[in-house]
Amino acid sequence: MDLQAYLKKRKSIIDNALKKYFLKSADEPSSINTAMKYSVFAGGKRLRPILCFAACEICGGNPKNILPSACGIEMLHTYSLIHDDLPAMDNDDFRRGKLTSHKKFGEAVAILAGDGLLTKAFEIIDPKVVREIAIAAGTKGMVGGQVADLEMEGKRKKEKGKLEYIHEHKTAKMIEVSLKAGAILSNASSLKIKAISNYGRKIGLAFQIADDILDIIGNKKKLGKTGSDLKNKKLTYPSIYGIEKSKEKAKALIKSAKNDLKIFGKKAYIFNELADYIVKRDF
Amino acid sequence: MDLQAYLKKRKSIIDNALKKYFLKSADEPSSINTAMKYSVFAGGKRLRPILCFAACEICGGNPKNILPSACGIEMLHTYSLIHDDLPAMDNDDFRRGKLTSHKKFGEAVAILAGDGLLTKAFEIIDPKVVREIAIAAGTKGMVGGQVADLEMEGKRKKEKGKLEYIHEHKTAKMIEVSLKAGAILSNASSLKIKAISNYGRKIGLAFQIADDILDIIGNKKKLGKTGSDLKNKKLTYPSIYGIEKSKEKAKALIKSAKNDLKIFGKKAYIFNELADYIVKRDF
Repeated sequence: MDLQAYLKKRKSIIDNALKKYFLKSADEPSSINTAMKYSVFAGGKRLRPILCFAACEICGGNPKNILPSACGIEMLHTYSLIHDDLPAMDNDDFRRGKLTSHKKFGEAVAILAGDGLLTKAFEIIDPKVVREIAIAAGTKGMVGGQVADLEMEGKRKKEKGKLEYIHEHKTAKMIEVSLKAGAILSNASSLKIKAISNYGRKIGLAFQIADDILDIIGNKKKLGKTGSDLKNKKLTYPSIYGIEKSKEKAKALIKSAKNDLKIFGKKAYIFNELADYIVKRDF
Repeated sequence: MDLQAYLKKRKSIIDNALKKYFLKSADEPSSINTAMKYSVFAGGKRLRPILCFAACEICGGNPKNILPSACGIEMLHTYSLIHDDLPAMDNDDFRRGKLTSHKKFGEAVAILAGDGLLTKAFEIIDPKVVREIAIAAGTKGMVGGQVADLEMEGKRKKEKGKLEYIHEHKTAKMIEVSLKAGAILSNASSLKIKAISNYGRKIGLAFQIADDILDIIGNKKKLGKTGSDLKNKKLTYPSIYGIEKSKEKAKALIKSAKNDLKIFGKKAYIFNELADYIVKRDF
């Protein structure tokens, strides 16, 4: 199967499902609906929900059972981008070539759009995986990673331990749980859930390393923003290991991730493609 | 039973339960733990979790079954205060006589402490009531109320419809769901759940009206802040109806709320006391 066609088809299913959660309602101020929709439909690739979808498919589950949770995960991802871009955080004006939420709607609305998406996610995520996903998104997951990231900004002493913590928590935990939730909701065996989670954590780390590299070698056209990591003196893989060693690290993680899925035999094919896609993206 | 003793006992149980959710962990930056704990233990009366507790008791449930959800509701309340106080929102320096989170820890940590609490809430709330509580907290509930509140700030045209929307959504929905969740988790009949929810919505509205009045006649010592509603030209009950008429409205709501609980007979006694307490607080 062609990976691009695979991604396109699933992205379209997810986009359609997402739209239904943002219909106008008399019981919701239209301004907040507009702001949430703006960021949710600002050009995201839907990587996390696609991974949730793929995990469901490889475990023989019914995609209908995971679709609300996959959409909830995308809402969590979007909220984290809105809040990360705020002036008090990374202070980014653009994302994917479009104005960030606070630049478009003002800070108050951006904060509330993030809060609204974070809350809406838990309205629609399947109760069976709410706890799992909340842990991955919280202070022992994504929020914790963002806190550590901000704390290391501008520090001259580069700590490898902190770098690992940031990458594992800021990015990998949510990617891992996207896959894990897909497997759990498809009633997969604990062996399969474990294998898929391991794969997820590793490609998640590789994804963040690739992102760090892109931040340096990418340009405004490709990313829609210019290296704000450099501007903010962030602790990144290339800043400690250099670009070449970072690439090697990402490749080793991808190889190990693929290995985790050998128990699925030929069915793992698309996961191998996905793993390669995640690091190759733009370099 | 003496209301003050009743409140004190339940507050102490809730405080002890809450503490356990904020033990230090190696997997969480200690700075965010400190910031979350600071706001959760900044002198809140625990009204919402106590109401959840009371609903459980009147329905003959086991308090152990509702305690995590009651704590989650308090975390949601605390997150909303942290974000409402931010410079981009109400811009308050003090709450209950203590520095607000962003004044104490900076804006970035305050935003993330709010996000962390909001997420942690859904980690611990019982899956059976997650959806219900997420709706009450989200853009068709508390977040929606805050958005409408900000939008009406400083507007010369006072709209009664908007005022009702703000009060119902910003405050009443969460108070209503606190009680409703306690009843649901105690396997109450739908008749009882409905009665308790109605009571909750009405005392929630009365609570917000009382808050508006306090903001005008209260002083810094009592509230720990000076009338920021007036400073921010908020749309409030007294600003439309005057203080006397607002008091009457609150009293009428309390009377009607008490009426809703007649089906519980003598057991409703403490709820009648609670309803009176909510509006009398400091005036």
